[in-house]
Parts: sequence; structure tokens; C-alpha cells
Amino acid sequence: MAYKQIDGGLTAPKGFKAAGVHADIRPNTTKKDMMLLVSDVPAAAAAMYTQNKVKGAPILVCQQHLANGVAQAVLCNSGNANTCAPGGFEFAKWSCEAAAQATGLAPEDFVVASTGVIGQALAREPFETGIPALVKALSETGGEDAAEAMMTTDTVKKSFAVEFELGGKTCRLGAAAKGSGMININMATMLCFVTTDAAIAPDMLQTALADTVSATLNQVTVDGDTSTNDTCAILANGLCGNSLIISAGEDYTTFCGALANVLTRVAKALAADGEGATKLLECVVSGAPDDKTVRAIAKTVIGSDLFKAAMFGADANWGRVLCAIGYTPGDFAVDDISVTLQSDAGSVLVCRHSTHHEYSEEEASRILARPAIQILVDMHQGDATATAWGCDLTYDYVKINGDYRS
Amino acid sequence: MAYKQIDGGLTAPKGFKAAGVHADIRPNTTKKDMMLLVSDVPAAAAAMYTQNKVKGAPILVCQQHLANGVAQAVLCNSGNANTCAPGGFEFAKWSCEAAAQATGLAPEDFVVASTGVIGQALAREPFETGIPALVKALSETGGEDAAEAMMTTDTVKKSFAVEFELGGKTCRLGAAAKGSGMININMATMLCFVTTDAAIAPDMLQTALADTVSATLNQVTVDGDTSTNDTCAILANGLCGNSLIISAGEDYTTFCGALANVLTRVAKALAADGEGATKLLECVVSGAPDDKTVRAIAKTVIGSDLFKAAMFGADANWGRVLCAIGYTPGDFAVDDISVTLQSDAGSVLVCRHSTHHEYSEEEASRILARPAIQILVDMHQGDATATAWGCDLTYDYVKINGDYRS
Repeated sequence: MAYKQIDGGLTAPKGFKAAGVHADIRPNTTKKDMMLLVSDVPAAAAAMYTQNKVKGAPILVCQQHLANGVAQAVLCNSGNANTCAPGGFEFAKWSCEAAAQATGLAPEDFVVASTGVIGQALAREPFETGIPALVKALSETGGEDAAEAMMTTDTVKKSFAVEFELGGKTCRLGAAAKGSGMININMATMLCFVTTDAAIAPDMLQTALADTVSATLNQVTVDGDTSTNDTCAILANGLCGNSLIISAGEDYTTFCGALANVLTRVAKALAADGEGATKLLECVVSGAPDDKTVRAIAKTVIGSDLFKAAMFGADANWGRVLCAIGYTPGDFAVDDISVTLQSDAGSVLVCRHSTHHEYSEEEASRILARPAIQILVDMHQGDATATAWGCDLTYDYVKINGDYRS
Repeated sequence: MAYKQIDGGLTAPKGFKAAGVHADIRPNTTKKDMMLLVSDVPAAAAAMYTQNKVKGAPILVCQQHLANGVAQAVLCNSGNANTCAPGGFEFAKWSCEAAAQATGLAPEDFVVASTGVIGQALAREPFETGIPALVKALSETGGEDAAEAMMTTDTVKKSFAVEFELGGKTCRLGAAAKGSGMININMATMLCFVTTDAAIAPDMLQTALADTVSATLNQVTVDGDTSTNDTCAILANGLCGNSLIISAGEDYTTFCGALANVLTRVAKALAADGEGATKLLECVVSGAPDDKTVRAIAKTVIGSDLFKAAMFGADANWGRVLCAIGYTPGDFAVDDISVTLQSDAGSVLVCRHSTHHEYSEEEASRILARPAIQILVDMHQGDATATAWGCDLTYDYVKINGDYRS
């Protein structure tokens, strides 16, 4: 099945309009900080939320609004997470009511999300002026502005879309995401909205989202900190005209492939733009006993501060890979592991049978000096494979997070 | 019970001699890199090892040698971990044989340990010259030299001792430890040797060590990376003359108190000297439902990169404390948490009922600018209390670990 990468992000699929504006949530900047996404018609909707026990107030509101599997719009702000904030739940409810009034929809049609600092109350004024400005700016090409408004410490926009055939119809699926620090997705630490004009029943949509997120977004870690607010929500409005997907089968598989295509690109983009990152790290683990174990191993390697710092220094310190594998929870053997380091500058086997394999340090340094590094691990004991994405640990990560609020 | 802090470290108790020399394991330095500790008589011995599945070869040898609960000496090198190294197990066995020959003891009398880089074979030469030099240098005041020889990226020696009364006799207990990076002790990521002239049966010694380590060393994290080699071993030679401790009771409690006193100081010293650290962080969690949960919460807070970076920046970003509590595994409520930040410059309540509590940012910054910070968390739902120790995340951590091997 071919998935063609296209522009447009959230508004690439039929029948979606979006906008992003500066609503003055973060004073002293002109950065866009509020976004609105609206589907022309009600859409099947599904979402996954952070597993953090401390949850942002918007998540509690979303859980109520999406209980019926239908939604039509997304309202999101950056600059304040509305978490552990006085009156946060009431504020999130109120913001949906304000957006409903301005759009003619019902408050329950809204997915609502917030990202930014924890523990500070939001003010109403930015929403009172921002929401009308957003409604006025709604456009079929507004996906990029919406993606921009979601950013906090992100340095690049995360906006993606694909086009594919579904039951003879041309279908599209788009996404916008944010996330750079406090990232150990589990379902967590970022916001990702996905739109599609495919027709799919809400329960199948939720299953597709859960399965795909497990292998993509949940395999990203920047700093091991699972945020309190992160949300991935998908709206499927059915306007591409395919037959409604109500069970597993060819169309469902095709749809999941499109979702995996886009969410894998989101995962890589989140990791590459990790706070302070200079390198994208991709750990591919094969030969492991089962899916749960192999995912855990890949994510543990990519999450090791020591290994991340070594990658920043272009140091082929593979002992830190073995160390991280060794402290991964689970039942597996560690006596026949091989490790290969790879980039567009070449590939070098550094560890075989869990011991040192002769290699040239100069060649390894040359390979590790590149901006995207693959760590290939073979556990030699089964068929399961998984990938995890992360980034190096740099001076700038410390700088950004030592001084985030000021 | 009074525990009087005294000098002397490992050789403070009666009947222990130690030495540390530069054996040229790390060429191009003159740093001491090999140590030997010998008891005048056979000692009850107990040890705990890393929970990392990838274990250093010396640990496998120790497990054999301590199976009978008796040991008389410790041989330890820094500069090379003897882990994932070709022929590592045979090398560790051989080094014990060489040390046995030089001291007149049996190879099985030796605890052996290594720390340093993973994956490189050790050479015999440093041991062939180093061991005789160590035997010649053995001294009743050699505890400090031995502690120095254990250091890798440590910037200060960790050597401690106490004197206390045990069944009418004056008893002493001393310790030397190393550990700065790859620290998430579980039993892990450092080496710690403890000596005492108390008389205690091996099984009681093992229980005392396990219980005390759980509440002290295992509550230290620098970077979440559980090392492959870490070992805490204790030798009790009985020379202070107390009645042999063979069961729980007053003497056992007194002995455990001395062990806790010294290991708590070791824990703080390890955390304060974490790689690149400028601040010691101590998180005291109270009001939690049970010991396992409360220890996990304290350790998760202290392990959050985001929170550690905020402490480096003297930023009272308490939302990151709530976030870390929220992603701690376990079954507990998060709706009535209070957080106080404290140092020798004062104390400020920043979060109450899990929401913002008004405070002065200037006062908080002044408090957080100090070199030792306490984070006091009250969960308001039970009686369990625990402490964990860590340090801030700094530019220097990245620098040290981006460039460790060169």
C-alpha cells in the first residue's frame, strides 16, 4: 500500500478548517499560542491520554466529551498547562462553552488541551479575545498556523499528512503535534491531533489509535519525564466517501498503515526536536522474546542519560548500551547481544556475543558525528522487533530546563 | 544510642589494614587505582550486588567466594570495570589467586571488585606489580589511601567511621565508597566496603546489610543508570569483643543503627558528588501508604531530569515535583499533596492541596541558591516516610559523560 506524503497537516483531509493566533497567554511575545480546529461535520473521535496520575484539567474534560465517540472541534492553548491550577476543571469547561458559542457547536463537541507551565491559573481574557479571532481566521489551509500555535520549547513545527486509497476512494490523514521536553510518552508528554476524512466507526478508531500509538508515540523519550497533559486525539469525519470501516479487514489495515506512517514521522520529529538535541537517535532492537520486552529494551537504551551524553560526544561507548539493556525490567538473556552503530556515514559493529568487537574508533566517531544515528541491537533469542526514538543529552537541555519559567 | 563520628574509614575498626597504590591501570595518570583491605582474622561477610542483568565479572566471583559467609580481604581496582570484557571471569579469579599468594590467604577469602570503563580487557601487569606493592604498604591507617584508589570521576573521597557501645564493648564501623555517575543504586552503581570489629553471625549480617541498604544506598540516584558492577560488602571480624550477635534484639538494633548512620553519610556523599553536581538534593516524603510506595516516590522525584535541571537553575518549579510523583508506579492518591522547599537559608511552602500556594519567588530563589536543598513532600494519606538523595543536572554532567573515555 502506497502512502503519499503531502502538505497541509491537519487541514489536508477534506472538511477540516483550522487557525492559530497569538492570544497573549504568554505576555511579552508575539508567538501564536492558541489554536482551533473544526470539522464541517461531526466526526468519529478517539483519544489517548497521559498515564501520569496527576492529570491536566483539560484531560478530565476531554474524557467526558469523548465518551460518546464523537467530536467536531479542538481548542488548544500553549503557555499554560492548566494543571494543579486553582479552578482548572471549571476553566477548561468554560473555555469549551466560549468556543461553542463562537462556532455554533455544542461544548461537548470539543476536544480541549493545554500545554505549558504547571500550577498557574489561566486568565479568561486571552480566550475572550482569542476565540473570536480564531473563528474569524478558520481556513482550509490553516493547519500550519494551528501547529505553530501548539509549540512551547519546540524549535520546529510538527505537521504531517499522507494521501492513500481506501476502498477505491482517495483518503487523507493529517497530524499536528508538539513536544520537546517532559517527554517520555506513555501515552504522554506531548499533544498530537490527527484528522482524517476516512469513515471509520469510533470503536475501531480507538483500537487503531491505541495499537498504533503503542508502537510509535509511546516509543519516544526525551527525558523520561511523563507529562501530566499529553493527549493524542483523532477526528475522522468520513468525507472521503469510503465505506464505513466497522471491523478488521483490508480497509482497516490500510487505514492503520496511514496512521502508523504519520505517527512514526511525528515520533521522529518529536525526538529530533527534543530539548537541546543535536542528534536524532533511533534504537532498533531485534531478536527479542516478545513485543513488550523488545519495546522496553529499545526505550530504555534511548532513555539512558549516560548513553545520550555519549552520543552528544560522538563516543562509541557501547558498554552503556549493554548497561541499559541489563537494567531493563523483564525476563531475557544478555549473553549474546550484538550492537551496531550506524548513520549515513557508515556502519560499525562494536559488540558481539556481549563482548567487545574490534573496530576503528576514528571510523565510529565519524559515523557518530552525523545528525541521525541508528543503534541496531540484536538480542539473538526470538523474533520480536521494535524501534524507539530519542535524542542526545546536551548542555542546552540543562540550560532550557534550568531556566524554563523565566 | 550515640554514634560518635571518628576518622580512619575502613581501618578505624580493630584488626583491619589497608593500602591504595597507583598500579598503572589508567596510564598517563598517577592516580591511585588499586586497593587492598585485609582483616587480621577471618570475618563474617555479607554483600549486595547490582540488580543489572549484565553483571561485572568480579560480582560472579564474589558470589562464589561469599557463599560460606566468610571473607578476610578485599581487592579492588578502578579504571576498568572488567565487564563484557573477553576472559573477564578468568581474570577476576586469577587476580584473587595472585592476591592470595602475596598475602598468604586463600583465593576464596577475597572480595573482588572493579569499576571503570566497560568492554575492555584488563592487563595482568598492573596486578603483578600492584599487588606486591599493596601488601608492602598495608597499614592500620591505610583506609584513606584505599578509599582514594577506588575513585573514578569522584571528586571527593568517601570515607566514614563511627564508634559506639555494643554489649558493653567499644565497637567501630567504617566504610569507603566510590560512585559519581551511572548511579541509580538498586543495589547498584557504586562500590562500598564496610568494616567492623563487631561480632555478628553471617546471616544476621546479611539481613542487617539488606535492610539498611534498602533505606540508604538504594535511595540514591544520580542519573537513573543502574551500573553493572556495583557492590556493597561488609566484613565483621569480631575483634571488639562483644557477644556474638545471633538474633534480633538490643545489640542487633544498635549495630543496625551504626550501619545506617554510616551508610546514610555515604548516600549523601555519593549524591553530593554526583557527576557535575553543584547541589545535594534530599527529598523527604511523608504521609504515604507504605514503605515501598514512599521510597519509590522520593526516588522518582530526585531522579527527574526536569526537576534536577530546575534545581540547577534555582527555579522553584514545583509542578515538576507533582509531575514526577504522578508518574511514580504504585497505587496512591495525588489530590492532597503539599511541597515545601528548604535549605539553610529558609523554608517555603510552594504547593498545598496539590495546587499552587502563594509564595515569594525571590525568597524561593534565595533558598534554592544554597548547596544543599531539601524537598519536603507530604502525601497526606498514611504514615510511611522515606528519604532519597540526588543532585542537580548540570552542564558538567553532560561534559563529563560526553567525553568519559578520552
